[in-house]
Amino acid sequence: MRESFHGELTLLGERLAHMCGLAAESMRLASRALLTGDLALSEQVLGDDSDLDHARAECEEQAQSLLALQSPVAGDLRTILAAVYCAEKIERMGDLAAHIADTARFTHPERAVPAELEAAFTEMGAVAAGMADRIGELLSSDAAGAFAELDETDHTLDVLHAQVLTLITGGDWQHGVRSATSLALLARFYERFGDQAVSVSKRLEFAETGIEPTRG
Amino acid sequence: MRESFHGELTLLGERLAHMCGLAAESMRLASRALLTGDLALSEQVLGDDSDLDHARAECEEQAQSLLALQSPVAGDLRTILAAVYCAEKIERMGDLAAHIADTARFTHPERAVPAELEAAFTEMGAVAAGMADRIGELLSSDAAGAFAELDETDHTLDVLHAQVLTLITGGDWQHGVRSATSLALLARFYERFGDQAVSVSKRLEFAETGIEPTRG
Repeated sequence: MRESFHGELTLLGERLAHMCGLAAESMRLASRALLTGDLALSEQVLGDDSDLDHARAECEEQAQSLLALQSPVAGDLRTILAAVYCAEKIERMGDLAAHIADTARFTHPERAVPAELEAAFTEMGAVAAGMADRIGELLSSDAAGAFAELDETDHTLDVLHAQVLTLITGGDWQHGVRSATSLALLARFYERFGDQAVSVSKRLEFAETGIEPTRG
Repeated sequence: MRESFHGELTLLGERLAHMCGLAAESMRLASRALLTGDLALSEQVLGDDSDLDHARAECEEQAQSLLALQSPVAGDLRTILAAVYCAEKIERMGDLAAHIADTARFTHPERAVPAELEAAFTEMGAVAAGMADRIGELLSSDAAGAFAELDETDHTLDVLHAQVLTLITGGDWQHGVRSATSLALLARFYERFGDQAVSVSKRLEFAETGIEPTRG
């Protein structure tokens, strides 16, 4: 029974890693759709979001069944509760990517991101997607130090987020109020995506070590 | 043992209800601070947010200990997993109220909300706080129908949120880009607060009935 139990835990981790891959891909495609104004790509991201919702439901069902049938304690219990927590956060990352795609769709045929902010949004998209990939890797490796690492990467997102807000509200803004509010919300979606990834890294590290991790 | 187990479940429910009370109070105070420009009140809300973080940690520890010691199955397992889920959502409601207070503090001594939007923000604050109160009540009563009820209340928040965005981006906006971006984010904090309350109601109803609830 224990062997099958640990096989089940491995499967749960693989499901979460698969979810991270989906969230990373959604973030990449949503950012590309936003920056190129590709309507079909926006719609693809919005349509694919239900895959993450299903994957999350499957993780939760598997976790619940493991709790009911195996009565895990200590580290195994911590791992299963962490999986439930992380599945919810990764699903939320997908929602945030979908919000970006939805903004791109809503703004079409105009571009939501003016030329002077393209570099910042391109980088936010790449950093955010990279964070999703990284938590996916952490699921099959050593999670010690994961929180400090992701927290540092997230700092890059926070700085870019602040730069966008400074440019929008700085007084020289030429693109009107509608564009500014849309960009402020967009920047927040990227920032929140990063926050979820940091939460996942913190929880994975705690599940592995049993110690609440602290910043770097 | 079963008697003490159900006593523990009752305590867990009481802890969650207490958290709902804290979230409702934070939302009321944050909204008042926002609308009156009361700096001390903003700082109080920000300082009190750690109470919710602690309460959430206590809920989670208690839930984990119940899972480890009692190996609950079926409805009891569903209830405990729901408690963990809801504690996280209610903590997030507190974070969102704190974001509102933080915006009020940041804007001080100017008011973040211009006269023509005071009514909308006053109503959003009242509706959002009422949703937190309502999920607190549901924890000690019958949760059947809770999702449809909260979802309908949340519709009021969505309408107010849309009204705020329409006014800001409508072309007659007189208060500049900085004010507009700040108000767009503020309106989103209220909307997200409501979304969390809806998620809690849905999960409580599922825990009680075992059936995934649907809209009205």
